[in-house]
Amino acid sequence: MKSSLWIEEFQSDHSSYKFEIEKTLFSGQSEFQAVDVVQTKGHGKMLLNDGLIMVTERDEFAYHDMIAHVPLFVHPNPKNVLVIGGGDGGTAREVIRHPGVEKCTMVEIDKMVVDACIEFIPQTSKDLTGDRVNLIIGDGVKFVKETKEKFDVILVDSTDPIGPATPLFGTEFYEDLKNCLSDDGIVVSQGESPWYQTDIQKGLIKILDGVFNDVFLYTFSNLTYPGSLWSFTFATKKYHPVKDFNPNRVTESGLDFDYYNKGIHSAAFALPSFIRKNLEGLIKND
Amino acid sequence: MKSSLWIEEFQSDHSSYKFEIEKTLFSGQSEFQAVDVVQTKGHGKMLLNDGLIMVTERDEFAYHDMIAHVPLFVHPNPKNVLVIGGGDGGTAREVIRHPGVEKCTMVEIDKMVVDACIEFIPQTSKDLTGDRVNLIIGDGVKFVKETKEKFDVILVDSTDPIGPATPLFGTEFYEDLKNCLSDDGIVVSQGESPWYQTDIQKGLIKILDGVFNDVFLYTFSNLTYPGSLWSFTFATKKYHPVKDFNPNRVTESGLDFDYYNKGIHSAAFALPSFIRKNLEGLIKND
Repeated sequence: MKSSLWIEEFQSDHSSYKFEIEKTLFSGQSEFQAVDVVQTKGHGKMLLNDGLIMVTERDEFAYHDMIAHVPLFVHPNPKNVLVIGGGDGGTAREVIRHPGVEKCTMVEIDKMVVDACIEFIPQTSKDLTGDRVNLIIGDGVKFVKETKEKFDVILVDSTDPIGPATPLFGTEFYEDLKNCLSDDGIVVSQGESPWYQTDIQKGLIKILDGVFNDVFLYTFSNLTYPGSLWSFTFATKKYHPVKDFNPNRVTESGLDFDYYNKGIHSAAFALPSFIRKNLEGLIKND
Repeated sequence: MKSSLWIEEFQSDHSSYKFEIEKTLFSGQSEFQAVDVVQTKGHGKMLLNDGLIMVTERDEFAYHDMIAHVPLFVHPNPKNVLVIGGGDGGTAREVIRHPGVEKCTMVEIDKMVVDACIEFIPQTSKDLTGDRVNLIIGDGVKFVKETKEKFDVILVDSTDPIGPATPLFGTEFYEDLKNCLSDDGIVVSQGESPWYQTDIQKGLIKILDGVFNDVFLYTFSNLTYPGSLWSFTFATKKYHPVKDFNPNRVTESGLDFDYYNKGIHSAAFALPSFIRKNLEGLIKND
């Protein structure tokens, strides 16, 4: 009989996901959090922050497609993009696939996450050293307070509101974000689980509602986040995420995605009733 | 230190879901399979067949809404509905919420499943004894071969193609189904996981393609099936599931659902690219 090594992440107090591990590739403790990269048996390499699964090679395309391409195909001409967090590099990788994007500034607080992903997960990190990526190791909260730049699209690619990501779930952060957003800008943020984390989700949306006029929610599915159905918030100064979306632009881009497509774009904003009911009056989805 | 009791279901060889159990309510071995009903700590009561999770009270609405209301709101006047399997009763419960449905015949092979659900899970089974439900304990494969009735909508609410459900994944069964389907009828079948069971899914769709002209796939999310994103096939003699869908009928019905709504109806047929690519040429989704 052979023993086997498993990682278990709790979705709630009474349910969990388990993944079989082949070996640990990296294990460190940064100033901010524990950082681990492991080789799983069925899901490729996996990044964990403080023991929570951030990314696996098998399904990371779902999250990264949906955080990046939804706003980038709504905004008609995004040139200057900001990513807060996203240390694994997958979000920046998708952003710069849009040839019109002149610069993708990425502000990640934890150098250890970036370094571990560059060394062990090139699938997500491969473009972090590219010309159009301006990688800043620093505090995103401080960055948006101090920058004089204006961004067309801002992506808040954060972990849960525990540890270093906590201030990313605050009103002051979003007021500062709004100030560095262009007049027709869009902010997309990691929006938590509609099944298991409805309180965190509702809290984030209330903060966004206080800062922006129009806040929407959209969903996607992956294999590793609790409940698998996951969400992004879409806060916008001008463009409607569905009515101002031109599907032809997706076709004309010639880009090929494993999750995103012109049909899934609008479909992602059609929410199951239990989500609509829970967020009634807080979001502008039709 | 207190010990705790958990049930673990494997999604694949190298990943699993776990749910904490409070106590076992029923445990039996029928002629066909092991049947268990347990009280979980976070997901209500749970039915298991041969150790595989069939239903939990917390999220069963997602599956039952989507198997029933999608075809019943496409077909303009469904009067006679057949359910193959569905022993927990949740599908029949949703079918008869449509006042135009005159009769819902349900053919479940395993009396022990029905009896256990009637006794322990009234949430799903509560309408099995109702006037418009014609509950037959018997072999669905034999039933569709012998019946002289014609059905407007047929729902194949089956488990995986192991154990008693194996013949439900066969060409002969679907040829017989087609014969007892009205000229404008629709067949919806449990379509497996687009993440983990793509071979089973593709096999089922190839069988449907051989029998019906037009086969579509649609998805929904729940909390308990491997990968959480799950699918139904939609095989149709006449009606297109999106183009022939009139959203006003949902509004006019006055029915309220926790998952299904007029937006999610069409959105469910917009598939992530990895599913489209895997099923290219086999399904008619746009």
